[in-house]
Amino acid sequence: MTVTDSTSGLVVRSSRVDTWRVHATQEVAYEIRQCDDVFDPDSTDLVHAARGAGSRRRFVVIDSRVNELYGARMVEYFDHHGVEARILPLEVDETVKNLDTVTRIVREIDAFGIDRRREPIIVIGGGVIMDVVGLAANLYRRGTPFVRVPTTLIGLVDAGVGVKTGVNFNSHKNRLGTYFDKSLTLLDTGFLASLDRRHLSNGLGEILKIALIKDRELFVLLDRFGADLLRERFQNSDRLGRRAAASTLQRAIQGMLEELQPNLWEANLERLVDYGHTFSPTIEMRALPELLHGEAVAVDMAITTMIATHRGLMSAAESASVLNVMAKLGLPTWDDSLDADLLARALEETVRHRDGQQRLPLPVGIGAATFVNDVTHQELDAALSSLHSASYSKELQTA
Amino acid sequence: MTVTDSTSGLVVRSSRVDTWRVHATQEVAYEIRQCDDVFDPDSTDLVHAARGAGSRRRFVVIDSRVNELYGARMVEYFDHHGVEARILPLEVDETVKNLDTVTRIVREIDAFGIDRRREPIIVIGGGVIMDVVGLAANLYRRGTPFVRVPTTLIGLVDAGVGVKTGVNFNSHKNRLGTYFDKSLTLLDTGFLASLDRRHLSNGLGEILKIALIKDRELFVLLDRFGADLLRERFQNSDRLGRRAAASTLQRAIQGMLEELQPNLWEANLERLVDYGHTFSPTIEMRALPELLHGEAVAVDMAITTMIATHRGLMSAAESASVLNVMAKLGLPTWDDSLDADLLARALEETVRHRDGQQRLPLPVGIGAATFVNDVTHQELDAALSSLHSASYSKELQTA
Repeated sequence: MTVTDSTSGLVVRSSRVDTWRVHATQEVAYEIRQCDDVFDPDSTDLVHAARGAGSRRRFVVIDSRVNELYGARMVEYFDHHGVEARILPLEVDETVKNLDTVTRIVREIDAFGIDRRREPIIVIGGGVIMDVVGLAANLYRRGTPFVRVPTTLIGLVDAGVGVKTGVNFNSHKNRLGTYFDKSLTLLDTGFLASLDRRHLSNGLGEILKIALIKDRELFVLLDRFGADLLRERFQNSDRLGRRAAASTLQRAIQGMLEELQPNLWEANLERLVDYGHTFSPTIEMRALPELLHGEAVAVDMAITTMIATHRGLMSAAESASVLNVMAKLGLPTWDDSLDADLLARALEETVRHRDGQQRLPLPVGIGAATFVNDVTHQELDAALSSLHSASYSKELQTA
Repeated sequence: MTVTDSTSGLVVRSSRVDTWRVHATQEVAYEIRQCDDVFDPDSTDLVHAARGAGSRRRFVVIDSRVNELYGARMVEYFDHHGVEARILPLEVDETVKNLDTVTRIVREIDAFGIDRRREPIIVIGGGVIMDVVGLAANLYRRGTPFVRVPTTLIGLVDAGVGVKTGVNFNSHKNRLGTYFDKSLTLLDTGFLASLDRRHLSNGLGEILKIALIKDRELFVLLDRFGADLLRERFQNSDRLGRRAAASTLQRAIQGMLEELQPNLWEANLERLVDYGHTFSPTIEMRALPELLHGEAVAVDMAITTMIATHRGLMSAAESASVLNVMAKLGLPTWDDSLDADLLARALEETVRHRDGQQRLPLPVGIGAATFVNDVTHQELDAALSSLHSASYSKELQTA
């Protein structure tokens, strides 16, 4: 429709558009690369990563303990490559995985000043520090690329290979965060040589998860070699042990990525990788700092193994085998914070997070899983009670 | 390669995967819809927006002043539709556009509790509050849908139609933020009836930007009707004025979206819509709270109009016409904080943000633009000096 202005002769058109729809397609691609010795001066992986080849300035956040062990080699590495690196050693655990820590990191980044396209932020450490720095990198100038160098087992197989960032808020685990893709991960298993046994078990918890939901062969590997891998810190010197270590890591990462890639932004809320993550967020936050993430996941898997067994989805022999492998991997199957009320509240919170339904993955035998929506409080009670007996008798056996 | 365990007979395969590449495609679609009276009880736009039809709980952040004027109608509206709305009135300006305010909002959301898929967060207000609440919604559970109801002109044509969220940090404008798409925007121009003249001018600054870079016809509209629209607050009662108001808004939004859609995540740093945004981020933060965003953009456009004129990209008549329209729209062309040093620093900061190059959009005549990378400090000095005389003589004329 047009109207003409009689004084100026100007024609005023008005098409009466009511609605605009904006469509766009975002291609996301990120890489996870094995790297034998990331601080080897001959390796350019770390300096060239994430379009960094053109710049010689880097902001690096490194876990304080990792810095004590590897800081000197790292500084030598950057010096060798003529990189002006600003190193921020940071002690981050779940209790300070919060927005204040993000703010602190961003303040340091801003003081150093980085080119948002060519000077990726590097983070070297475990899952918690990667999550926090990832959020900082995602927020800074609405997204600065970052390079992850996981130094823990859980970092290598879980936090380091996905796209989630996050911090805790208001006693809720990862209540704030983003999905973030502008990243490259360098996997250097050499760091595991200096990892303490408990943190190795922590990572084995997430590896066991992948085994239980989709990879029976990985379960067999863990059953046969888990204790060795734990003892040797994945640095096994014999040929068979070396293969077992490599195969365990590869199967775990492969399995994880097969689940993540088609559902990167979690449009589908039935996620197999949520196995062990139904009750654990609440258990973990309640038990802080007593339980590590993978330990809380193990406790969750022990509970759901009992539920599955009571439902006839697993045999008694299979569930005994699962608890037995958890013990081999140094994982807890019980925590004294557990009670029926806590589980009921945890389930309620998870239902809210999963859009009104439980969508609870339960194992079917070993190496497969299904989703259910009808777990009752009675089942939780029964599972707890069976688990308590099983765990308690196991403790007696172990003692 | 396979190794067989001689004791168990287990075959350990290791395929020696070195690199995983994760690929995914994200489809982004969001909608901007005209809505004549968003609080009309007969309208379901607001309650059904963003998959909200299935739920009757809403968390609403509303600008305090808007709440004073429209709060009673809004409460009636939600009551009428049986929606339990938690209303958070908030006073947000650039000085508190920060992470603390995001935290405060998130704390309230978390206390109310929302279903992250079906209970979109609603924000009603201007550009600043939309940016802040957008960031809160984006972070909360890694992304809760949100519905924007802009109540200012700049909100209607700029902040409300894009995908950026943000807060200021460390005296830098929007230094932290995200790109966010899970949104729907309802455009109700009725709110402009209660908007003060200065904030109308503020929005006209962004409309003028679109006119200058790509829409000469819009410039002609502003020249002819801008003063009327400002006086009548876009509620012109005569047929011609109504058409002019509708056409001005539609052309501005259309032009904006044409530029945004192919470059939603700003992979291409040569953005026409960055016109007026080279020096203004620094000017605005320096002059806080004296200058509104659109005013700082106007000052930037006045400076770059002078640069373009000195380069022969615009005629003297054209640049005079631009400054003249700015005056009609109630926009400043000068600020006393301006000096050559400030502009040089602002340019430096922008170069860093634009990956090492100026990528400075300069007008070519009226309604077209080009990008340059070689603006010198001498040019800045000369532009400032011309602008100072022009603005000063204009003030004398107006006085």
